[in-house]
Amino acid sequence: MKKDLSCCFPSLIPSRDTARFFLLGVLIGLAGAAVFSSLERLTELKAHHLWENRIQNFSHEHNISYDKLKFLLHHYEEARTAGVRTERSRALWDIPSAFYFVGTVVSTIGFGVSAPSTTTGKVLLVFYGLLGCSATILFFNLFLERVITLLSLLIFWCHTWQDSQCGRKDQTSEGDPNEEWKPSVYQVMLILFVAILLVAFGAASIYSVMEGWTYLESLYFCFVAFSTVGFGYFVSGQREHHEDTWAYQVANCLLMLLGVCCTYSLFNAISVIIKQGMNWILRTLDSMYNS
Amino acid sequence: MKKDLSCCFPSLIPSRDTARFFLLGVLIGLAGAAVFSSLERLTELKAHHLWENRIQNFSHEHNISYDKLKFLLHHYEEARTAGVRTERSRALWDIPSAFYFVGTVVSTIGFGVSAPSTTTGKVLLVFYGLLGCSATILFFNLFLERVITLLSLLIFWCHTWQDSQCGRKDQTSEGDPNEEWKPSVYQVMLILFVAILLVAFGAASIYSVMEGWTYLESLYFCFVAFSTVGFGYFVSGQREHHEDTWAYQVANCLLMLLGVCCTYSLFNAISVIIKQGMNWILRTLDSMYNS
Ligand SMILES: [K+]
Ligand SMILES: [K+]
Repeated sequence: MKKDLSCCFPSLIPSRDTARFFLLGVLIGLAGAAVFSSLERLTELKAHHLWENRIQNFSHEHNISYDKLKFLLHHYEEARTAGVRTERSRALWDIPSAFYFVGTVVSTIGFGVSAPSTTTGKVLLVFYGLLGCSATILFFNLFLERVITLLSLLIFWCHTWQDSQCGRKDQTSEGDPNEEWKPSVYQVMLILFVAILLVAFGAASIYSVMEGWTYLESLYFCFVAFSTVGFGYFVSGQREHHEDTWAYQVANCLLMLLGVCCTYSLFNAISVIIKQGMNWILRTLDSMYNS
Repeated sequence: MKKDLSCCFPSLIPSRDTARFFLLGVLIGLAGAAVFSSLERLTELKAHHLWENRIQNFSHEHNISYDKLKFLLHHYEEARTAGVRTERSRALWDIPSAFYFVGTVVSTIGFGVSAPSTTTGKVLLVFYGLLGCSATILFFNLFLERVITLLSLLIFWCHTWQDSQCGRKDQTSEGDPNEEWKPSVYQVMLILFVAILLVAFGAASIYSVMEGWTYLESLYFCFVAFSTVGFGYFVSGQREHHEDTWAYQVANCLLMLLGVCCTYSLFNAISVIIKQGMNWILRTLDSMYNS
């Protein structure tokens, strides 16, 4: 019976290839870790050194013990969690900010500028997130479907136009265009990539004006937000004067929504291409082994 | 020609239903915002008040101007970005921590405990993230495929066992079990939900011992991490003594990987159910309208 099953469910038994690709993934992760470590380790040590100097100078200058300062900083960390910052920032839990918070939760960006501190809020977040994240994935998938349909339409129009230029007008009306003009994954990837670049460059122009970031920082923020990584060092719309600029807040939400949708779709398209590449490698290895 | 296209590409034109569901989504978001705002706003104001009192007392007690303290805190915020904390924490950019960082980027958790501060690091992150996130989505999708296959196998076994109890042994071998015993989306959801609960309860037991969090906080951390929201208030494996506990670090990574895989799959399963529910509502509304 076991033999029967292994032929019916071939993908269940982890093959040597699966193990190899898993190992490859871990190795690429380690390589990335080594690169980031070498890039950032020095800056980290310098920052630690600088801070130690600063706090010791402060302690010495004002004749306050190091422990008392540490106690103040500990309180400050506590206050930070509730939204206190040295530069005055906007309220974290008024309705527009709470809406922004809900948006960053269901899209799984989770900047962490604000997070529920009450137990009720935490419990509620789990249930709200469970349904919200699922609904958002559905929304993303529907968005990807529309993009593919739009692309089919564009390809269909291009061909019709080309054919009409060549005087072969009648032939194109035949057949089902949905099938005939189905775009390849490369076309989908390309159009999404261009769309993301357009959204990111547009958004970065707005952010660099409204947030006081450099253009490069704004672009970096766009990637971090659109990919739903959301580190939380740069977060848009948190300054005090943003409370009154409704247009900017709405534009911010819409740009993020568009960016996240496109990037989710792009990741899916690239993942299909990676899968095709992996299959190609396996086939090549297989034929090399067999010949 | 336009008539032809609208029948060929029906999903391109945003229907009244699409607009309705979009509006529904915004309303649910606003409702969530209102609830979280009412829950958290008071705590925020209290925390601001408490902090103002504390810093004024400190300023008064030690005869330091408020501005000088603010300057120190501003420096502290800068240092925090580079990983300085009041409680001693582990290095952020040694190889194991950098590997953890890379893992939280490609899974899009992005706790934000560490983020590249050098420009090279930021640029590299964009390219690494683009490929890494895509590869991770592929990994998640392959994981979901395996889960479905495993479930098919379980159902097949159950039926075989039931039939053998009833003495109808021969009938089950016929037909393609892959098709015949394909699990429903509800069964997939149930098994994933149970799996996540098991992983979360197991992980929370470990975290509550190793991180000094309460069990409820540990469970909340599990949801925030597994759903890839990743706020960054609770982050596992950051204490100084964790540097030496390799077993815990590896267990932490594996538990997170398993949790994120299961939760991604669960979100996808729930999104399918939501889609079915939406279609059912539309059909019901349609038949009510037509009758
Ligand atoms: K995420
Ligand atoms: K995050």
